[in-house]
Order: sequence, then C-alpha cells, then structure tokens
Amino acid sequence: PFPQGSLKKRPQSKRITDLYRSIRAETERLAAPLSAEDQTIQSMPDASPTKWHRAHTTWFFETFILEPFLQGYSVFDPAFNYLFNSYYEAIGPRHPRPSRGLLSRPGMDRVADYRVHVDRAMECLLETADRPILDLIILGLNHEQQHQELLLTDIKHAFSRSPLFPIYKAAPSPPNVTLPPKIDWWPIKSGLYPIGHDASEKGFAFDNEMPRHTVFLEDYALADRPVSNGEYRAFMDDGGYERPEFWLSDGWAIVQAEHWDAPAYWRREGSAWQVFTLHGMQDVRDDEPVCHVSYFEAAAYALWAGCRLPREHEWEVAARRFHSDHEHTHSQHFHPASLTSSRQKAIRQDVWEWTASAYAPYPGYHAEAGALGEYNGKFMINQMVLRGRSCATPVGHDRITYRNFFPPQARWQFSGFRLAKDR
Amino acid sequence: PFPQGSLKKRPQSKRITDLYRSIRAETERLAAPLSAEDQTIQSMPDASPTKWHRAHTTWFFETFILEPFLQGYSVFDPAFNYLFNSYYEAIGPRHPRPSRGLLSRPGMDRVADYRVHVDRAMECLLETADRPILDLIILGLNHEQQHQELLLTDIKHAFSRSPLFPIYKAAPSPPNVTLPPKIDWWPIKSGLYPIGHDASEKGFAFDNEMPRHTVFLEDYALADRPVSNGEYRAFMDDGGYERPEFWLSDGWAIVQAEHWDAPAYWRREGSAWQVFTLHGMQDVRDDEPVCHVSYFEAAAYALWAGCRLPREHEWEVAARRFHSDHEHTHSQHFHPASLTSSRQKAIRQDVWEWTASAYAPYPGYHAEAGALGEYNGKFMINQMVLRGRSCATPVGHDRITYRNFFPPQARWQFSGFRLAKDR
Amino acid sequence: PFPQGSLKKRPQSKRITDLYRSIRAETERLAAPLSAEDQTIQSMPDASPTKWHRAHTTWFFETFILEPFLQGYSVFDPAFNYLFNSYYEAIGPRHPRPSRGLLSRPGMDRVADYRVHVDRAMECLLETADRPILDLIILGLNHEQQHQELLLTDIKHAFSRSPLFPIYKAAPSPPNVTLPPKIDWWPIKSGLYPIGHDASEKGFAFDNEMPRHTVFLEDYALADRPVSNGEYRAFMDDGGYERPEFWLSDGWAIVQAEHWDAPAYWRREGSAWQVFTLHGMQDVRDDEPVCHVSYFEAAAYALWAGCRLPREHEWEVAARRFHSDHEHTHSQHFHPASLTSSRQKAIRQDVWEWTASAYAPYPGYHAEAGALGEYNGKFMINQMVLRGRSCATPVGHDRITYRNFFPPQARWQFSGFRLAKDR
Amino acid sequence: PFPQGSLKKRPQSKRITDLYRSIRAETERLAAPLSAEDQTIQSMPDASPTKWHRAHTTWFFETFILEPFLQGYSVFDPAFNYLFNSYYEAIGPRHPRPSRGLLSRPGMDRVADYRVHVDRAMECLLETADRPILDLIILGLNHEQQHQELLLTDIKHAFSRSPLFPIYKAAPSPPNVTLPPKIDWWPIKSGLYPIGHDASEKGFAFDNEMPRHTVFLEDYALADRPVSNGEYRAFMDDGGYERPEFWLSDGWAIVQAEHWDAPAYWRREGSAWQVFTLHGMQDVRDDEPVCHVSYFEAAAYALWAGCRLPREHEWEVAARRFHSDHEHTHSQHFHPASLTSSRQKAIRQDVWEWTASAYAPYPGYHAEAGALGEYNGKFMINQMVLRGRSCATPVGHDRITYRNFFPPQARWQFSGFRLAKDR
Ligand SMILES: [Fe+3]
Ligand SMILES: [Fe+3]
Ligand SMILES: [Fe+3]
Ligand SMILES: [Fe+3]
Repeated sequence: PFPQGSLKKRPQSKRITDLYRSIRAETERLAAPLSAEDQTIQSMPDASPTKWHRAHTTWFFETFILEPFLQGYSVFDPAFNYLFNSYYEAIGPRHPRPSRGLLSRPGMDRVADYRVHVDRAMECLLETADRPILDLIILGLNHEQQHQELLLTDIKHAFSRSPLFPIYKAAPSPPNVTLPPKIDWWPIKSGLYPIGHDASEKGFAFDNEMPRHTVFLEDYALADRPVSNGEYRAFMDDGGYERPEFWLSDGWAIVQAEHWDAPAYWRREGSAWQVFTLHGMQDVRDDEPVCHVSYFEAAAYALWAGCRLPREHEWEVAARRFHSDHEHTHSQHFHPASLTSSRQKAIRQDVWEWTASAYAPYPGYHAEAGALGEYNGKFMINQMVLRGRSCATPVGHDRITYRNFFPPQARWQFSGFRLAKDR
Repeated sequence: PFPQGSLKKRPQSKRITDLYRSIRAETERLAAPLSAEDQTIQSMPDASPTKWHRAHTTWFFETFILEPFLQGYSVFDPAFNYLFNSYYEAIGPRHPRPSRGLLSRPGMDRVADYRVHVDRAMECLLETADRPILDLIILGLNHEQQHQELLLTDIKHAFSRSPLFPIYKAAPSPPNVTLPPKIDWWPIKSGLYPIGHDASEKGFAFDNEMPRHTVFLEDYALADRPVSNGEYRAFMDDGGYERPEFWLSDGWAIVQAEHWDAPAYWRREGSAWQVFTLHGMQDVRDDEPVCHVSYFEAAAYALWAGCRLPREHEWEVAARRFHSDHEHTHSQHFHPASLTSSRQKAIRQDVWEWTASAYAPYPGYHAEAGALGEYNGKFMINQMVLRGRSCATPVGHDRITYRNFFPPQARWQFSGFRLAKDR
Repeated sequence: PFPQGSLKKRPQSKRITDLYRSIRAETERLAAPLSAEDQTIQSMPDASPTKWHRAHTTWFFETFILEPFLQGYSVFDPAFNYLFNSYYEAIGPRHPRPSRGLLSRPGMDRVADYRVHVDRAMECLLETADRPILDLIILGLNHEQQHQELLLTDIKHAFSRSPLFPIYKAAPSPPNVTLPPKIDWWPIKSGLYPIGHDASEKGFAFDNEMPRHTVFLEDYALADRPVSNGEYRAFMDDGGYERPEFWLSDGWAIVQAEHWDAPAYWRREGSAWQVFTLHGMQDVRDDEPVCHVSYFEAAAYALWAGCRLPREHEWEVAARRFHSDHEHTHSQHFHPASLTSSRQKAIRQDVWEWTASAYAPYPGYHAEAGALGEYNGKFMINQMVLRGRSCATPVGHDRITYRNFFPPQARWQFSGFRLAKDR
Repeated sequence: PFPQGSLKKRPQSKRITDLYRSIRAETERLAAPLSAEDQTIQSMPDASPTKWHRAHTTWFFETFILEPFLQGYSVFDPAFNYLFNSYYEAIGPRHPRPSRGLLSRPGMDRVADYRVHVDRAMECLLETADRPILDLIILGLNHEQQHQELLLTDIKHAFSRSPLFPIYKAAPSPPNVTLPPKIDWWPIKSGLYPIGHDASEKGFAFDNEMPRHTVFLEDYALADRPVSNGEYRAFMDDGGYERPEFWLSDGWAIVQAEHWDAPAYWRREGSAWQVFTLHGMQDVRDDEPVCHVSYFEAAAYALWAGCRLPREHEWEVAARRFHSDHEHTHSQHFHPASLTSSRQKAIRQDVWEWTASAYAPYPGYHAEAGALGEYNGKFMINQMVLRGRSCATPVGHDRITYRNFFPPQARWQFSGFRLAKDR
C-alpha cells in the first residue's frame, strides 16, 4: 500500500473524517444481517469469520496508526494483537489462520466495543493529523474496503456449506432474462503504452500499482464485455469439463480430483442449474456474467472459444481507452447483474476478470521497509492478476490500475473473465 | 441401550416426568454460561458444539419417541433430521460430523425453541405412556446425560484451543495440597464371578452391560484409588515420555508424532506445570488423580510401576465387593477433586479409569434390530473400556456395570486409571 | 517369543543345524523367482521388499545371536544394523519403514553375500551352542518362517499394483469346481478350559501363547470349515457391501472411503469376478475359502448369516478337540485350495481365520526384558487375533495355540474366517 | 516442441542418424553405473526411475514417429503405452506418476531390448525420412536429452535418501579452493529488444521459445556470474533462514514447515557443511556456485543483497550481448565447477538460473494441435523460468533462448541464480 502515490494534493482532514465514518459504518452495515453464530464460523482456511474481519480492520488502525501516533492511546486489549494480526511477521506471532473459526471469544459485542474504542481514538487523531498520518488513514480505509468485499465472499462460502442455505439478504425482484448482444471487440494498435498508477497524480493507489512504467504491446483486441453464463453453458454442453485438451495440466488435475463440472455454487436441479447466492438459491440466468470460476476454467473456456485471456497490461490499456468515468453505479445487490443493460459496455463490471498475467512486481517496485511492506509484496508468487471490480466491491474502491490477485484455483471470489485475441 | 433390563418393576410415569424435567433442565443449566459463539464452535471432529448437543438430544426424543408414538405430533423442522442425526444409518444421511462447527444456523435461540417444542410434546406423551414407551424415555434420558458429560469435555477442548483460555465457571477456593496415603491393594481370590447387569433386576442399564454372564478370574489385587498427579510426575521425571520400553508401539508413535510430554491440557510454566481446566488455568496439584491421559499413557505408567492395568471384569468384581452405595456426592466442580478425602477409597472417583480390556460384546449379546441397535454395538472395535465415572458425569448416571469406551489415543475425556497386579 | 516353553527336552544341536539349513534355504527358494527389481519394490508401508526380508531375518541372527555369543564374530556391514532393524527400539534408530522401497543398495547379490556370511558363522556357533543359545536359534528360525509368509503376501500385494499382473509361479492345473457340503457344527459344552501353550511341554511357542491359563466358556458351536467364496458371494449379491446394518461403524467408513465391494484382489470382469493370485489372474471359484477379507468384512458376513465370529478361546478349545495331527499336507501352492477335499474338516486350513478377540496379553504374561521383549508384547492394541494357518504358512510353523494378529482393516494376508454360534 | 523453427535448411538424414545414435547411446552410458535396483526406485512423485526414463524416451519415438510413419512397424509390447506415457492425455490413460517406482517389470534388461527394438526400426525410418519426420526425430532427440538431465537429478535425489549415500561416479581430484573475484555488472540500456527464437533461423528450438517478439526494457545490469556458495553462506550466517523480511510468504511457510536452513543436499557436520553430490559426500566449497536452491531462496538472497533476480527477458538480452559461442566445454562432472576459472564470465554456467519471470506463453504462441501440443503449453502456470544450463545438461542441448521451468519450491534440479539490479 502506501501513500506514495498520493502525497501531493492531499484532501483535508474533514473530508477524511467523513470518509472514515462512512467506511467504518459500512462494515457494520454489512455485518448487521449476521447473527453472533454466523459471524463466528470459518468454512475454509482462505476465508475468515465476519467477526474477525471486523476486529482485524480495527486492529489495523490501532496497530499502524494509533499506537505509533496518538499520544496516550491505551490499547483496548493486549491479547488482540495476537488474535487479529493477519500476516504481518514484523508485528509478531499470531493466531493460526485456519483456526480463526475457533475464536468464540471475543464475542460479537466485545468486537463492537473494540470498534467504538478505536473509532473514538481515531476521531481524536483525525483532528490534528497531518499528511503522513492522513495517508496512513487512507491506506487503512482502503484496507477496510478490501475486507468488506472479503466479508461478503467469505460468508457466502460459509453459508454455501450449510444444508439450510441461509439467505444473507432478500433478493430484489429480477428482470426478465434478455440475452446480451454478441461480443464486440475493442481494437488496440501495437506500440508503447504507460502502465500503472502515476505517483504524481492525485488519488490513492496501492504500492503494487506503481511505479508507472512503459510496456510494448502487439496489436490485440479485447472483448467489450465478460463472458455470460449462457456462453459458458455452451462450453459445458460441449464437454468442456471432460476434455483435457482445453486445460492446463494443474487445472485438469483439480477438475478430476474435485469433480468440478460447473462454476462454484452451481448445482444441478434435474436438467436445470441453480446457483447459490447471497440472496439464496436461484436459477442460473444466461444473461449474467459467468462468475465464481477459477483461472483454470477461464483459460479453458478461452482456448475452447479460440481466443485467449488478456494480459493485465492489455486490459489496462483498453480500459484507459474505452471506459467512461461514470459508467458504473453500484447495484447494492450482491450478485452480478445481467449483462443486458446500459452498463453493458463498461470496463468495470460486476465480476473480477482473470487475466493471463502472473502477479509480479512492476519494474522498479520496492516494498516499503517495515511491517506495511508486507501488505502486497510478499504475495507475488503463484497468483494471477484480476482486473476490474465486482458486485461486492465497495463503491469508490476500484480503479483502472487496480491489481487484484488470487491463486489460479480460487473460486470463492466473484471472479469471471473477458476474452482477448491477437489481430 | 434399551430397556431389556428394566421391563419389570417399572417406575411410574410421575417419577419419570420429574426425571425428564430435571435432566432436560440440567442440560440447559450446563449450557447457560456459554455464549452463542461458544455454543457454535467445534475444535476437533471428535467433539461437538454445545448447541449441537442440545439439539441432538432433543432430536433423539423427537425421532425415536414422538414421531412413532405421539399421534398428531408435528415435527419442529424437517431439516433438523439431517442436521442432528449423529450416526444412525437406519435413519438416513446426515450432516458430516467434522462440519458441525459450520452450522451457524439454527442459532442458539432457535435450538431453545426446539427444546421447548419437544418438551411440550413429551409432557403430553408422558401422561399416557405405558411401559415400552417409558423405557424408551429412560433410554433417551440416559442418552441426554451422556451428552451432558460430552458437552463439558467438548467445550473444555474448544476453550483450550483459544489463546484467551476462557473460564467456563469460576473455581471454588481450593483446599491446601495434602498428599494421599500410599496405595492399598484390594485382594480378590481366583474363581468364577458374575459380570454385567442382571436384566431381572430393577434399574436401567445399556445393552452393552448385558447379558449377565460368568467369567473365571485368577487371583489379583486392585489399587484402592487412582494414580495421582504426584505419582505420575515421578514417571515423567524418570523419563517416562522418552523411554520406548514402557510403551505400546502405536503409543510410542503418537508420543513422537504429537510431541506428548505430559497429560493433555498440561503446559510448562517455567519449571512448574499448569493445567487448563473448566475453571481456568491452575497449578497442577500432586494430590489430584492424574487425568486426561490416553490408554497408552496409562499402560506405560503401569509398566513403569511394575504393575498393570486391570481388566474390566477385575474392576467390576472388585467394585461389587468394595464399593459403598453412598460413597460419592457430586462435587459440582468440573475438575477432579483431591484424592485426600473421605471419598478416597470409593470405587467411583472423579476420573474414568482405563482398563486393559478391548470393548467387545458380552457373550450372548445381540444388538436390537432397527436404528437403536446402532446405539452401542457398532462401535465394538479399536476401543478400550473405561470404568467408573468422572467429575463431569451427571449424578445418578453411573453404575458398577457401566462400560464407557474410547479409542486408546483419546485424551479429552476426564480419563485416569488405577493399577492392578497379579498375586 | 522365547524359549521359555522349550527349555526342557531340547533337541540336539544336529537336528537344529539341519533345521537351520533347511529353513534358511527355503527363504532363498521363495525369493528365487523374483528379479532384482522385484525384490526391491515396496507397495505400501505395511509390506516390505523381498530383499529386505532376506536381510532382516539375517540381521536377526547376527544381532541377537552372533554378536553376543560368537566370540570373534565380525559384523558383515555396520550400516546394516540401521537398515535392517525392523522395530527394536532397544537396538537403536532404524530406517523408516515406509522408505524400505528406496533401498536400492545393498543390492540383491550383496544381500546374498550377507546371508552366506551369517550362515557360515552360525554353522560355527551351532557346533558348540548350548541350550539357551539353541533356544534363541529356534526363535530366529520361527522368526524367519514368519517372514517367509510375509515375503509371499508382500510380493503379492506389490504385483497386484502392477498393470502387468506378474505371475510369481505358474499354477498347477486346477480340479473342477465341486461345491463343498453345507457347514456342520462342532458343539462344545460350557465349562472351564485350558488355553495357551504349556511351558512344560516340549516344542516351541511364542511368548504371546503363554502362560497356559483357564477360561470359562458358555455352550457354543464352531463351523467345521471356513466360509467359501460361493457363500460370500451370496452375501455380496444380497447387498452386503451396501447395507450398513451389518457393519461396524469403522468398517462401514472404510467400505465407503475405499469403495470396497468385494474381497481384496477381486476385480469385475463383465458379470464375473476374477482374482489376482501368485499364480496370476484367475476366475473366482465358489469352492475355495473366501480370502483376503478384513475383520470388518468377516464380522459383517457373520451378522448377515445370523451367526458370529468365534472368540479365540473358542477356536482353540474346538481345535484341540477336533483336529487331527496329520490333517494337513502343504500343497506347495500359494493360493487356498478348494474346500472340497479330504482336508475339508481340518481345523488348520489354507486361510488364517479372524476371531472376535482383540489381541491382548494372557493373564500372567510378561514381556521379557531387553530387545526381544519387543517381539510381540508391544503390539497388543488395535489388532484382532487370527487363528489357524494359511497356504503361505511354512510347513511345521503352525500350532493350535498360535496367535496371529493384524489390524481389523488388513486384507493383504491370506485371511478368511469361520463362523460360530451360541447354542 | 516442434520443428516450426527448423523447417528451413534441414540437416541431411546422415547427420541426424549420427546424432540419433550418439544421443541414444549417451542415455545408456549415463545409466550404466546404475544397478537394476538403482534403476527401479522412485524417491518422490516429481522424480522418475532411471529405467522409466530409458523406456519413456523410447516410447516417445515409438508413439510419435514409428507408429504413424514406419509402415509395418510392430509395437514392442502393447502394455508399454500405458506404462511409459508420461502425461499425454491425447494418447490415453497412463500409469500414475507417483507409482512409477512400483514397476519392477519390465526389468532393466527388457527395457534394453525395447531400446534395441525401437533403434532398429528408427534406423530403417531414418534411411528414407523426409523433413517433417526428421523434424519430429530432432524433437525426440531433444526430448531424450531433457530426460538425460532428469535421469541424473532424479537418481541424485534417490541416492540422497539412502543412508548409504551411494556414489554415482567417482569424483576427479578437485583443485584448491580459490575464491572468485567480486561480481561485475553487465549494463544494458533501456529500449526495444527482440526476444525468443527466430523461426527463420536454422537450428532447433522448442515451441515455447517462439515466436520471436519485441519487449521494452528499462535500464538494468546483470551480474557477470552466479552467486557463490561463499556468498550464500554470508546470507545464512546473517540469519537468512530465520528472518521473514526477506521471504515471499509462501517461501517462508515452506522454510518453517520443512525446516529449511540451507540448500538441498547440504548437511551440517559439526560446524562445517557437507553436500551430497553424484560423486558422494563432499565439503561445501565457497568457490562453487550455490546450487539446489529454490526460487524462494534465490529471491530471499537477492532481497538480502539489495538486488533482485533478473527477468527472463533481461537474462536473454544480456546473454545475446555478452556470451561467447565457445564459452563452455562440458566438464563431464556432475557437480558444478568452481567459479574461478576461464569460464567464469560465461553466461552459460553449471547451474540453471532462476529468473523473476513466471512461465507464460510468448505473445502469439499457440500450442500445436494433437498430443505433441501438450509438450510445453499445458504447464504454463505456477512455474518460474530458469535460464542457462547446468553441469547435468547434455552438451549441445542448451541455447540462449532456452526456457527451463520448475515450480518455485523445487530444489532437486541443479538450480542456482544470478543477481540483477536497476540502474
Ligand atoms: Fe488485512
Ligand atoms: Fe447421541
Ligand atoms: Fe522381523
Ligand atoms: Fe518426457
């Protein structure tokens, strides 16, 4: 993370105080439909309990901002440093990640108290904070927004493991299914292109989006929308999950070991498919973008379709060219909307889009010294970059230069994909 | 289970109604100190969440008694049959045991409603129930008492995994440590002895305690009390956990793989030992019986001490001879009391006692037909019998013929042992 | 083991020298059909390479007899103590069992040299050995015979894992299938019976067969022959592998996890069954005893058949009553012979017979001090006793008091079973 | 694979026949020191038995060349297609990779017969083969050379697991240790550079080295030699393996789980280090390149040293600039030579060099249709590219455009690394 890119033209403290309040409140709003029991469970090591997300994001402010910078600040509970440190080796030992679901204590209410305690102290600090501290606060807020998305994807996974298939939030009544038009292709000419966040511009960016640098790209074209469920079903109907010729070797091994035959959360209901969503079990709609697929499935589909996945640079260059600033209004649903809509051509859609690029440092990247240097840099191996945003991404958190990343087998994020091709 | 042994001289319905109310209320009393989050977590596949115990014992009455015998009974929630069936294949498929900790729903309160719903129906049924049904109800109550003990041992295990080491219940102020006198030996002469519950006597017994049959025993002697922590520490100090010559081969493998160097829940604190209890972390007391040891540790100690563990028949024959009916008053503590007390010579102590006997059917045993035939019989492999009772056993639940059983590596029960020797 | 039982009336040295030569030669005769590669592979942790068996049995003589008792004996290779110690903790650390198949060195020929080196030294020692040493040599020879059987069962398992299904030895031409007559029942009256080897009698026995002691048995009857393939197929055809009501809980879990639907080494060939044998792939014959079943399968069959498995005491008492001394001539085949033959009524058949008895020490048993005390005693947990002998047991190695033992899930031995019932 | 890049200016059949003979003979020469037992064992799923390598490379010629193109060719043994297919899904099912060590049959001699059978047929085919077939033969020979290197690294791993630490080949007497001079830096200016094999040039290249394309590079510098053992020991002495700040998160997890504290094959001998080599156990020499390190260790060292690993493009561009055609003569040793030598400045050294580039297709890459399309393309995930060559790489097999690839945790190859830095 860190505010390298945002040192100039810093927003004033008042604006940041408002931002702080609204983002912190949003976390609680997202947790509100969940009972104490819901907030406690952990359904796989990659996912964390709601309660843990609420406490960890609070710990982040306490550890990296209040402890060093607010004189006289008194730590809420010394045990929490061990419990809610996620992965910062420089901070010290921590509770094992796969055992987060064993933490019945602190309870939901005590976590709420923790948040209040830290928020009060943060309000004090915000009154007098200068730029370097404000930059850290903005980092903390972006961090909290990342966990807001994870809170949703993690509880979705947990609920999907319950035979009761609990509903997180009632669904709005859906429009009729109308298939989206065929994919159009956005053409890009070969040449040198700038990539990444320009540190001299205003606005926050994570450190992994910098430094801005130059790449050479050959001619290519990018699809003007993600692949739909309907299109993905044609791949399935053509034996996509039974034909090794489309699959990377490691992907084929998972398909067989895990008996994958559809995206995650899909299940057969007679001859039809249903999908588990945060709004409950629904029919699979052909006009929605395919979602909860792994990189392996995205790559297999692309090969089957005679195309390929875009490299992250290709995605970014096309996005810069073809996006519109006001293209997206958050639906406040927690499921991808139909592709048939005014938003159809937007680069930022309701699903994260797998790219063909391994997550690696940009030329010239150096992680900061100290604990916050662990934020992004140490994960740059065995992960693929996703671009865009999803229906679970908080409003205002996405950017054209944003680099999300997950291992190629991950499916519990709202992950889809868009095709590319050489020209 | 089952009421084979208790068909004659059946207590009247009124007495059973009182018993029903008090045992059902005791479960809720045991769960009361636990928060919604506490009641949800599962720390290992062998252990179950508190909430699950509360619901499963209720499901037992609903499934085996109300559904078949109460006309017009309406099932509380059809999904619960899948969620709260423990292991009855004849009843149908069920939620996987290792995933019980993922059940945030039904919540604690809905489980309370479930209990009320079933209790009301049971009260109706009790008004008119005749013997065979009353026998089933007594079985259900004994079943619930077994789960009361498990509720305690399971939450103890879960709490032991938390870095916060939560306290289930405040500890009473303990007496000073006074070492118990040396072990005395109860002698038994060789001969033919009856073993097991006599079905013609009044009183409940599980099916695995029957039929009564005859065994021939050689001369032997049984220790008049369990081994104490102080004695066990002498074994530890003599290198007990580092000397393979005392250990069964499988036990030695576990010692090395799991780095066992003391009973479960013990941890080194400088040069002293502490032990995690339901009353919190405490100093290890030399006058308490050693507890939370596996069969392997019990057998290793016995070999080191130049003795052996008693066979279950030997335990029972000596118990019949040397017990006193009024020997034990439940301490209402959830930790073994000091051996130095008036209860010292009691056969039924505060720890279950490992015997040298594999859990096997008595000659002539036949499991009942139907689902309840799965209660005991299908577990008669790879388990060792424990006799006696523990500080967590409900008052009135123990019997001289009672056969508890666990795999030899299990340590999360309140398990200790008593020595025997040939004469 | 040990020669406790054989101290009196010791055979002279000459006879033992002959025995030594013939048993040692038999091992080499059994290994002869196997190539260097065949002798090297290990197909599961429980099984050992042929080469390892040849070396380990030699190490046994070197370590327990030559080193302590032959003055001036020079160890063949000091590294072999680490490589070929099986499980004797008192002897020191050893090569991990699951990695025996990684020992390409010493090669087959060097192992042959090792055997010659030790045999020469043993011949020297035999010239002057007195009783205690002769007793150890007899133990060593019985040990080698046990490994002869394992050599066969282990290479059978290894070959079964090869897509080529190698043939260990050509099969004799088989007689026509003639179904054996229905089972007859040998009745035994209730009473006190002696069990185990009498140390005052001549003849070798392992320590786990002693001391002789008394048991009380109720009336029972034992089948006069093992269950046949034909009978077992009726169980299979009746859904035996799909009906949990016949199975112990742990057994049912294995059936499902391992997809068991027949004895080990059986495989479907259209609508028929074939079985892999040391003579190659053959049709399953209904007149052979069922073989390569686990304890779980034996117990499930018995329950299905309305019978039970005999306890080991019951087997021994009936064997004493009904066996004939000259009942069995070794077929020199390595597959169970048809039950339809003059040998039909013999107590000692071509398959080991699972009993309902857990492997436990006899009353009064004490393992010897020192390394040889580890021979049997430390395995007395989580194993079931098998009685009788099998087609792979060396001639002269079996006894009515012999206690073989394996974990209940083991199937790679020639294990079948015989029914019993109460009367 | 495939001969796209070599369609023009094809060498005549005579030259290829000579090449065929010499490369095939080299495989047998490499296997010659190994006994039948040595050639059979498999010490981990990633490694294969020698015998398997000898048969699989033969199967490659039989399957992809003789079967389709030699009229009347009779397959040596139909079972071999199942046994020796490595990973070609299009060819059909195959023996599971982790079970290659269970294949005692076919024996070493029969594999030799297989090689002769195929070689004879190949000689026939070579007499008349035209270009497309000759191209396939060249692919088959390059494939065999890759397996020659694997044969060596795999037997090294297997021998390292033996307590006897067998010697593959006697070591030449080594020169004295003379530390290499400090690293010099080769500077490269920013600009557009061509990358990859030019298909219009003569000479073979694998498909993953094509197509040639353009990249833009910033200013950088590449070290003129790999990092030495001496330098790596300074990292170790500075707590390199205990300080998480240098490690990627996944790397740190392995360091802790596997207790890594030095390169693979190193072991402490008092206060010194020894290393297991194909020439036996040796002292670690400070003047040799560090070897058998994972990508994680290479990256951690680079961070500690204030540098970074080169991207594969950077390596290739510098190699093109600074290599000399005659720079390397194969030492015929199977251990990296000292860096202090005339070869010091060579780009192609005795260790493969990890780069910072994930293995991905070059822009415009398309795997061929059919089974041979599986040769490289389907592994382009979760692997890092290594450049250069090693002491085990066959003479003539390396190229500046060569892309080797292994998962970041792999250590059993001769893998070292070279530093880079921005300027
Ligand atoms: Fe975080
Ligand atoms: Fe129960
Ligand atoms: Fe042995
Ligand atoms: Fe290959």
